[in-house]
Amino acid sequence: MTITSTGPYALESLPEANATYVASFGDKASLPLPPGKKVAIVGCMDARLNTHAATGLHEGDAHHIRNAGGRVSPDAVRSLVISQELLGTREIIIIHHTDCGMLTFNTPQLHQKLKARPSITPGQHAAVDSFAFLEFSDLEKSVKDDVGFLKEHPLILKETAISGFIYKVETGELVKVA
Amino acid sequence: MTITSTGPYALESLPEANATYVASFGDKASLPLPPGKKVAIVGCMDARLNTHAATGLHEGDAHHIRNAGGRVSPDAVRSLVISQELLGTREIIIIHHTDCGMLTFNTPQLHQKLKARPSITPGQHAAVDSFAFLEFSDLEKSVKDDVGFLKEHPLILKETAISGFIYKVETGELVKVA
Repeated sequence: MTITSTGPYALESLPEANATYVASFGDKASLPLPPGKKVAIVGCMDARLNTHAATGLHEGDAHHIRNAGGRVSPDAVRSLVISQELLGTREIIIIHHTDCGMLTFNTPQLHQKLKARPSITPGQHAAVDSFAFLEFSDLEKSVKDDVGFLKEHPLILKETAISGFIYKVETGELVKVA
Repeated sequence: MTITSTGPYALESLPEANATYVASFGDKASLPLPPGKKVAIVGCMDARLNTHAATGLHEGDAHHIRNAGGRVSPDAVRSLVISQELLGTREIIIIHHTDCGMLTFNTPQLHQKLKARPSITPGQHAAVDSFAFLEFSDLEKSVKDDVGFLKEHPLILKETAISGFIYKVETGELVKVA
């Protein structure tokens, strides 16, 4: 097995889609680096969530931080510190969603699946077991927990406005829960 | 200083923008959980980068993983493992961009700024100093480094197609560099 350098989407579909975008780029060329609305989104990576279209936060408006679950992982905090300290954002909006994959497994199960891969050697088992996958079993609680975590975090500026939403993949609706 | 629960964007602008999105949601209601194009994007959080519009990867097509720099941090790997093992993606597209904030500072400078905040106590300085902010000084090299890192990573499936792009914030163009 070899890792190929270019996948089918990047090779066959992305160039034409990007050319269409470039052709209608217009005044986006003059957008400044700092987000105009001073907002940072922390949202799930889910394929059905478009954090631009669903929120109205388009090019130039906000930072879009996304990961599995939309969790406030140490890496999300790294991004938020840069967002606030260097680029002036002062509002954080957390977005988790219905039918999330993070509700469907737990970390020990995923450790077992990974260790069962033929490519993973026994010497790598400890590294696999060190991964916390940050799944959750209660959607609304996960949003409230993450909002609470950021409100107490010493590196998040105290004047930050922080809210939490559930995105309903069935309707496109954002429901505020924190 | 107190952290307020809802910021100006979430309170004043998001509800109307979201209602407009919901009103034209259409057949997106039936999209399945696994990404239809089997793609995972790893892109910068930058406000000017819309990873949906610029790539043509719209709702249902791909996972969108985003952080400061679009780096393959441990948390990005966490998200990619979930994306591949549980949701079937087999292509990764890394997107960094011109005029990135990650080119404008270094981690020791940011440590100094954070430790100078009145809210940070001397007892928190060690925690601040433990943060690596993953900045870079060579844009093209950062993309190639991250593609190379994933190609060698034991938890990324060997059959994955991995490519790397620079997004030009001046034109909207995606330029393949790896």
